[in-house]
Amino acid sequence: MLSKSKVKYIQTLGQKKFREAEGLFIAEGPKLVAELLQVVPGHISAVFALEEWLNEHHSLLTHVEAHPVTEIELEKISQLTTPNQVLALVKQFDNETLLPAKNKITLALDDIRDPGNLGTIIRIADWFGIPQIVCSRHCADVYNSKVVQSTMGSIARVHIVYTDLEEWLIQNRDVTVYAAMLEGKPVHTIGAIKEGILVIGNEAQGIKEDIAGLVNEKITIPRKGSAESLNAAVATGILLSQLVDYSTN
Amino acid sequence: MLSKSKVKYIQTLGQKKFREAEGLFIAEGPKLVAELLQVVPGHISAVFALEEWLNEHHSLLTHVEAHPVTEIELEKISQLTTPNQVLALVKQFDNETLLPAKNKITLALDDIRDPGNLGTIIRIADWFGIPQIVCSRHCADVYNSKVVQSTMGSIARVHIVYTDLEEWLIQNRDVTVYAAMLEGKPVHTIGAIKEGILVIGNEAQGIKEDIAGLVNEKITIPRKGSAESLNAAVATGILLSQLVDYSTN
Repeated sequence: MLSKSKVKYIQTLGQKKFREAEGLFIAEGPKLVAELLQVVPGHISAVFALEEWLNEHHSLLTHVEAHPVTEIELEKISQLTTPNQVLALVKQFDNETLLPAKNKITLALDDIRDPGNLGTIIRIADWFGIPQIVCSRHCADVYNSKVVQSTMGSIARVHIVYTDLEEWLIQNRDVTVYAAMLEGKPVHTIGAIKEGILVIGNEAQGIKEDIAGLVNEKITIPRKGSAESLNAAVATGILLSQLVDYSTN
Repeated sequence: MLSKSKVKYIQTLGQKKFREAEGLFIAEGPKLVAELLQVVPGHISAVFALEEWLNEHHSLLTHVEAHPVTEIELEKISQLTTPNQVLALVKQFDNETLLPAKNKITLALDDIRDPGNLGTIIRIADWFGIPQIVCSRHCADVYNSKVVQSTMGSIARVHIVYTDLEEWLIQNRDVTVYAAMLEGKPVHTIGAIKEGILVIGNEAQGIKEDIAGLVNEKITIPRKGSAESLNAAVATGILLSQLVDYSTN
């Protein structure tokens, strides 16, 4: 049985300040939790699951603190509208160490505020083999429940760093900075690239002026119809699908 | 002042069966409502807005039933967490008449259930000049508030039809059917097309078997990393960006 204080403790992890203080985040659902148990077993701090789920997955749980819970208990600790069998407390990843930008494509997010967009972008990066996403400090929190759930496990495979984006771009002046803008070169005329930083701007405001001043190559997705803009995650997917070089690993 | 019965009436439009019975849907926010007033003025049945908004937009409202409301009244009738100045009751579009599939690209959605995905796909179609989206009967309702809001006005520019998708594909055997599948030809090897039906499958199940049997060309977005799949709307955007022929109008 879950103690009241344990329930309360897990509930507080819905808030960023408590997540930061504890260095933990919540991941839910059989697919996501099983994937994290396989990809980053050392990061799983505890698992709370229905008896049935625990029995089915005991081979994954040999070194993990696992608590059986009832459906009612799971409802109390879940962040989801419909709790789904299992909830894990996961140790946060290193979100401070920057990887070098040379010889790879890096995504740079300039204030992506919508958790769903951030999660989807992380999943896209994982699909296209982008090793690192550099987020400005006003981006959504990667450990927000909506972000975690919408990454579908990619959160464990893409290195995500929060930093002063302008400063980081200045430190990387030897790497070409591309940015998605309404006026720019059509992306299919750029061709595949082996190295570069691709900046994606805020959902409403686009790319901030001080960041725009550091862009070497403005690129755009040609429009044939009338929509004013594309969703930020959709634009990221389209640009990466054209820029990623499939001839290398 | 809004009567209690008017408030109640507008609230019922949050439900599909009442929307269908009345032939109306709700659109909210200054940007979306102003766009609908410009693109489809004849479809605006009534506008409920803060005094200030009405004053600023009176030139758009000459032939429209416009009601001033207080912030508290707007809160009562709004479907949004944060009501935003104006709410319009809009007459539903024709969602039954099918346009021919010859000489154009048509999107076909096989049970896209998530309202956010459907809205985003409509916006993508509008960006790429896709005139028609054919939805299977289990797709999300296009007049669901989340869909309407996430189309950002594109709902008025893309023709959306609900029908038996399998039957419609059989009726259109003279048009090539492409489908996004994990195993298929890399999309960039297909090149731009002038005509075709692009089928997008359900978020979790993909394309149903009976639909898959009608596909002429399976296409895929090559993966370089490890994510298991891409979000359905993101995949739609990537595929259209590669298939749309920019040389024609």
